[in-house]
Amino acid sequence: MSLVSRDPILLTPGPLTTSLATKTAMLRDWGSWDASFNAITIDMRKHLLTIANAHDNHVCVPMQGSGTFSIEAAINTLLPRDSHMLVLINGAYGKRMAKIISMMGRKVSVFETADDVSATAADVERLLESDRSISHVGVIHCETSTGILNPLREIAQIVARHQRSLIIDAMSSFGALEIDAAKIPFDALIAASGKCIEGPPGMGFVLVRKSVLEQSEGNSTSLALDLYDQWSYMEKTTQWRFTPPTHIVAAFHQALIQFVAEGSQAARFARYQKNYEALMAGMEELGLKPFLDPKIQAPIIVTMHAPDSSHYDFKRFYNSVRDKGFILYPGKLTQAETFRIGCIGAIGAEEMRQAVHAIGDALQEMGIKTKNIE
Amino acid sequence: MSLVSRDPILLTPGPLTTSLATKTAMLRDWGSWDASFNAITIDMRKHLLTIANAHDNHVCVPMQGSGTFSIEAAINTLLPRDSHMLVLINGAYGKRMAKIISMMGRKVSVFETADDVSATAADVERLLESDRSISHVGVIHCETSTGILNPLREIAQIVARHQRSLIIDAMSSFGALEIDAAKIPFDALIAASGKCIEGPPGMGFVLVRKSVLEQSEGNSTSLALDLYDQWSYMEKTTQWRFTPPTHIVAAFHQALIQFVAEGSQAARFARYQKNYEALMAGMEELGLKPFLDPKIQAPIIVTMHAPDSSHYDFKRFYNSVRDKGFILYPGKLTQAETFRIGCIGAIGAEEMRQAVHAIGDALQEMGIKTKNIE
Repeated sequence: MSLVSRDPILLTPGPLTTSLATKTAMLRDWGSWDASFNAITIDMRKHLLTIANAHDNHVCVPMQGSGTFSIEAAINTLLPRDSHMLVLINGAYGKRMAKIISMMGRKVSVFETADDVSATAADVERLLESDRSISHVGVIHCETSTGILNPLREIAQIVARHQRSLIIDAMSSFGALEIDAAKIPFDALIAASGKCIEGPPGMGFVLVRKSVLEQSEGNSTSLALDLYDQWSYMEKTTQWRFTPPTHIVAAFHQALIQFVAEGSQAARFARYQKNYEALMAGMEELGLKPFLDPKIQAPIIVTMHAPDSSHYDFKRFYNSVRDKGFILYPGKLTQAETFRIGCIGAIGAEEMRQAVHAIGDALQEMGIKTKNIE
Repeated sequence: MSLVSRDPILLTPGPLTTSLATKTAMLRDWGSWDASFNAITIDMRKHLLTIANAHDNHVCVPMQGSGTFSIEAAINTLLPRDSHMLVLINGAYGKRMAKIISMMGRKVSVFETADDVSATAADVERLLESDRSISHVGVIHCETSTGILNPLREIAQIVARHQRSLIIDAMSSFGALEIDAAKIPFDALIAASGKCIEGPPGMGFVLVRKSVLEQSEGNSTSLALDLYDQWSYMEKTTQWRFTPPTHIVAAFHQALIQFVAEGSQAARFARYQKNYEALMAGMEELGLKPFLDPKIQAPIIVTMHAPDSSHYDFKRFYNSVRDKGFILYPGKLTQAETFRIGCIGAIGAEEMRQAVHAIGDALQEMGIKTKNIE
């Protein structure tokens, strides 16, 4: 490990680099029963609904744990025991959603496309027409496995037209990409603290249609992950049902305040887009190629092909770039040797340029030519 | 709310007051895939086994979320689908454990005693002999509802003699009260970061008998709370299966280092015992009476009878004490008006004396005589 004392910059899709103001919000111990903490919870829930323009018909229910805990909570609570959910898969997170449903004993069907191909609205329409028993549809907005952006709006509109219930995993997109509940009808949308709002990891949240949540009492087979119970207790008491991660909630709330100050989703998107462009310009200079067609690439996390060189070894490459101050992310594909670079976090284009230089230096040290690699 | 800028001291049973060294450990963003973070996870797991002298036969599996998430994970993973669990109840946490089992569709029986009465080893023996189908027994070591200490060692030995599986909720006791796996046989023991180790809340952990965990693949109906999956992934990769609460893990690890430096469990117990004695001496001066017989009271959290005065109102009392710098905890009993005071956290007898003064002043301001209240 490098002896450099500066913290490395995380180019990972969460945990990511947070601002100092966000981190220092964790320097206080809060009583989870105290009014001052409850005020933070209330304000956090309001902010999150605002981001999706979802105050009219939705409520926000936070949940302890990683994002996956919130996804499982939403599914276990919102799906009646005899429901049938269709999951659109083009990566690890779609697969995970299907596995969650199957493990809890609910019926699940999957429609799987290649990692670099999205299900289309036409696909979904055909599937819904061919099986009337499908009651719910699950979709991953930005599939972190590759960084592919799925056509959420078109799919949401088809699902709504067919009067089925849509559950969106917006883990990697929420706050950075526009999701307007007035244009994208959904029953549940799930994200987490440690993603594009740039908080620390440790909690997730579900934006859920109130009329659907109200009907969901008794569905859950889990107490900890019972979203209805979490919500109804919180409505009654303003408190979390079980001990909240108080420091994480306080820091996430602080991150939300900074998010608004920066200019909310439009500004967040613009910064990430610049990060992405700076990164891709640099990658091109180094002769490294992205896995995805830029047309379906979200400016969140980019999958790069590894250099086609016998000198390349991911572990050595990763360690070298880390010692220069940047944490990369491994690839998650089986068919190609890749690595991933996140564009999100409390960083700007300058940090992305520095990361490009670090990557270039690391490759050179490994004896890999960084221009015009064939 | 008071304008005093000093943070209030939490006299609550978690979240509690943590040291500044613990909180400042959260001022760094960690890559959850990075070796430096994985080293922390490994060391944390070792420390936790050491506290229970459980290296020989047990492994430690951390889990995201509050302590209840870890309890549900242990039960869902370790109970085969056709098992039958007996839960010993004398408060809210015993009730919660029974509810968890029932919601996941496993068979549960309960043995409930009054809030101030423990099930005895003889009770357990009788119950196990009368129903051979009982495969598991669940017990709460220190029931936070009142602060009562249940006779864990005697119960554990009876359960072992009858070759049933014991699952211990040691949430409020672990680290402060002695639990030695060589003397207290158990298959699973659950606690959390934000309790007597004095970390921030946000994760729990299960010390689980390795031979039992190895047989538990496929039991869980939950992906997020699958302890087997969490463990086997961590063993293979040294990483957490889903995004860990990195800042919480780092701070909890820092709290463990301080725990060892202080003198481990014996020293932690001694400090809490002094806190408890300082508190009870002060309560006696004020004429306030404890709910429990001191013989069954753990020095963790104390339930006090509210003053018998028409001027008393918990909310006003709580707010007044908070404005003087101390956060109390409400009572959880239905049969008596009570409030609770925690003795745990990064505080000493001096803080307990200050809290006593604050409580005395608050009662006086409310027009309640603080000596010889009848």
